[in-house]
Amino acid sequence: MISIQTVAQERPNIVVFLVDDMGWQDTSVPFWKDTTVLNKQFRTPNMLRLASEGMKFTNAYATPVCTPSRVSLITGMNAAHHHVTNWTSPEKNKNTDAADDLFNPADWNINGLSPVKNIPSTVYATVLPQLLKDAGYFTIHAGKAHWAPAGTPGANPVNMGFIVNIAGHSAGHPQSYLGTENYGNLPGKASAQAVPDLEEFWGTETFLTEALTRASLKALDQPILQHQPFYLYLAHYAVHLPIMTDNRFIQKYIDAGLSPVEANYASMIEGMDKSLGDLMQYLKEKKADKNTIIIFMSDNGGLSLAPPRGGEPHTQNLPLKAGKGSVYEGGIREPMIVKWPGVVKPGSSTSQYVMIEDFFPSILELARIKDSKTIQETDGKSFIPILKNPAYLDTNRVLVWHMPNKWTGKDGPGINYFSAVRQGNWKMVYNMRTGKKELYNLHTDIGENNDLASFFPEKVKSLSAILSEKLRAWNSPMPKYKNTGKSVPLPDGE
Amino acid sequence: MISIQTVAQERPNIVVFLVDDMGWQDTSVPFWKDTTVLNKQFRTPNMLRLASEGMKFTNAYATPVCTPSRVSLITGMNAAHHHVTNWTSPEKNKNTDAADDLFNPADWNINGLSPVKNIPSTVYATVLPQLLKDAGYFTIHAGKAHWAPAGTPGANPVNMGFIVNIAGHSAGHPQSYLGTENYGNLPGKASAQAVPDLEEFWGTETFLTEALTRASLKALDQPILQHQPFYLYLAHYAVHLPIMTDNRFIQKYIDAGLSPVEANYASMIEGMDKSLGDLMQYLKEKKADKNTIIIFMSDNGGLSLAPPRGGEPHTQNLPLKAGKGSVYEGGIREPMIVKWPGVVKPGSSTSQYVMIEDFFPSILELARIKDSKTIQETDGKSFIPILKNPAYLDTNRVLVWHMPNKWTGKDGPGINYFSAVRQGNWKMVYNMRTGKKELYNLHTDIGENNDLASFFPEKVKSLSAILSEKLRAWNSPMPKYKNTGKSVPLPDGE
Repeated sequence: MISIQTVAQERPNIVVFLVDDMGWQDTSVPFWKDTTVLNKQFRTPNMLRLASEGMKFTNAYATPVCTPSRVSLITGMNAAHHHVTNWTSPEKNKNTDAADDLFNPADWNINGLSPVKNIPSTVYATVLPQLLKDAGYFTIHAGKAHWAPAGTPGANPVNMGFIVNIAGHSAGHPQSYLGTENYGNLPGKASAQAVPDLEEFWGTETFLTEALTRASLKALDQPILQHQPFYLYLAHYAVHLPIMTDNRFIQKYIDAGLSPVEANYASMIEGMDKSLGDLMQYLKEKKADKNTIIIFMSDNGGLSLAPPRGGEPHTQNLPLKAGKGSVYEGGIREPMIVKWPGVVKPGSSTSQYVMIEDFFPSILELARIKDSKTIQETDGKSFIPILKNPAYLDTNRVLVWHMPNKWTGKDGPGINYFSAVRQGNWKMVYNMRTGKKELYNLHTDIGENNDLASFFPEKVKSLSAILSEKLRAWNSPMPKYKNTGKSVPLPDGE
Repeated sequence: MISIQTVAQERPNIVVFLVDDMGWQDTSVPFWKDTTVLNKQFRTPNMLRLASEGMKFTNAYATPVCTPSRVSLITGMNAAHHHVTNWTSPEKNKNTDAADDLFNPADWNINGLSPVKNIPSTVYATVLPQLLKDAGYFTIHAGKAHWAPAGTPGANPVNMGFIVNIAGHSAGHPQSYLGTENYGNLPGKASAQAVPDLEEFWGTETFLTEALTRASLKALDQPILQHQPFYLYLAHYAVHLPIMTDNRFIQKYIDAGLSPVEANYASMIEGMDKSLGDLMQYLKEKKADKNTIIIFMSDNGGLSLAPPRGGEPHTQNLPLKAGKGSVYEGGIREPMIVKWPGVVKPGSSTSQYVMIEDFFPSILELARIKDSKTIQETDGKSFIPILKNPAYLDTNRVLVWHMPNKWTGKDGPGINYFSAVRQGNWKMVYNMRTGKKELYNLHTDIGENNDLASFFPEKVKSLSAILSEKLRAWNSPMPKYKNTGKSVPLPDGE
């Protein structure tokens, strides 16, 4: 009898290399028209190499914070649709929204994603790795999971269809990146963020990024030995807080005059880049590079709260405005690169806008899995046509961001209670607190500095209608006024 | 191309169901000639079923404590040979021997087992799951690992060749069996014994034994779907300390008048037995039962220190003498059952003595893996001939126990600084502290109550020579006198 693997063997291997909280400019790779000061500040030679071998997406988007993006990726749903609009606590039934004077919290899915029915306050959905596993893929999770709180099925990546789970659980960041601190697992001091597994590296100088990489490559030995196609979801904890020193790379950034915190941040970026390089090197050695697709992505914009970041607040993603938590470009535009040997033209680039939920149908298509039955209606659109044709252009597509949440105690630009919509080069931002609508032309104003709302009222009206229609169709959660108990109106006023 | 799996598919699946600290009599299955009071006290219907479908080994042995047995199983080496003669600390370079007035510690391998070269104070060896994995088996570890401390490769079962690791790490017992206590993972309260993984069960009523079972069966889905032979090493944390209440089973033991601690212990035994039943049921549902070999075993005798056990000290394994930590039968004789559909005669029994290191060659033979290259010379002997022939008898074989360690602060019967040897029905016990040698005939005196040394001096001499020869050949560690710095002499006086 021919086993499933024998048939599946011809399918490509797929790697999603997901970085946490990495900004659009936190790389040597120029994702804008010009090479920026930030591009020169960071050192990511392996990303440069990946870009030279693949396609750069200059208009790739995620949601403003982590869990919504991760749920979108694994379900194919927009965050306004899956209702996991904020990050989930490691603790069950705990709303992470900050307290607010004006609003009571929206009714979002505070328990995240569940692959099992009837778990309260979750979105119940068919998940990508399960479909891949069912189709014969060897599925590996490494790093940050953060789909759901402890005490729910979604807490454990194994319940999402991952055969192997390395260090993924309910927490959204590591307690420590240091092997010398056991990644947080110090008796009596471990928090909910203590990183599970990787015990062989405890007490050593191994930075978490390196430990995850080594463990991932070790896990890849099995499908490679078995000639089974694999799906590796290498979701680094880096470069999320706590910003710590990766000793292997720090000195050059200190020498370059960066502040201590920004030097640390840059060392974490370079450690992440080394992981990418080690992965590519490993695939080459195993002669698996030609049949492996690598998708590089971040889950939201770079953190622009300062402190904990250095510099002036909300300048860390320039030329983009603001950062993590914001619906402005700094919070949502991501460094995305796809290498697909033999198909994607090396060194190519696309400005077609894509979104994190597009990963779901795209990866299924790459794995040649057709007609999957999913519990949920998916919203993502495959980016395979773009990969096959850099000139592909669709300016009619509508992208939606929706964060009816108070992510952080103090409002910032585009941060706390915002929605946004993009169609073509037009982007409208809706402030739920004030009702104000802003309109930007991203082609001429990537920094969203010139609000054109008063000049193009018809455009504002049509984008309001489009956004409202989506939110209405998805029954998207909205914050409620404390004084009336009523929901905040949609952008079209209803 | 035909994949490795296609070839391997005809090979049997193998389950090692290893219980921790379970005594020879902690079961409804009568392993002695008579049904004992203890057999009536415990309730293990699924073990009864397994015995009725397989072969009962009434003279199966392990070492007096856990790590040595686990290292022997996975390397095929006797503990006197691999030198991991005591349990290993979760902390690297830490000698777990208690302080003693007479002796300095023996030079044993305090860092346990390493699958990687040049790790100080370890035995470097080729390990069973790695050989199985290399031969195409899907290898799953669930439960207690305890081969080596954190900060060494052996801490992580993945480094031993397990593809999937569920909850195994450097610790030898769980901080808590209770889901409501997150198995120990409470922020600020977690010790080195907090159980990793299984986060989906945190905050629920799921007893650890049940959580491990469910996770194990979930992991089995993959090789069954892929028609890949599997090796499941389900090494329960139960019934090691801390003795806690398994609420599902406790009431009947309280009603039967057991003390609270012994009722808890019995509830943990029954919870373990349910796990065995669930596993058998699962295999049947998946139509994998006919091609799956199940080997039931414990790693050392039942704990007989009281407290923490109830009753009089060292009576918990009657008719056997003493318990865990002892070279008397109570510390080393184990409840072993092997089910091998189509080969082993249902309901059969053997009194041939076998030893934990025999698992290594036996499992390789069951998996039809021949001529494996191993770094170490192995000592185990395959028990396949016994499985195929219940009348098999070899009374010349020599078994050795060697514990040159101070396991617990207070000496007990056969506990702290003892060696022993068995050949046929003769057993000699060597007390390193006093130099005294005892001789027992296990056929007539299973309780080791009648020391026959003075009646059979030639037998004592010959067994001393046999034991000494082994210890000399293996360069076995011996304690050293504090006053002279010299090693304790071998039983033959040299």
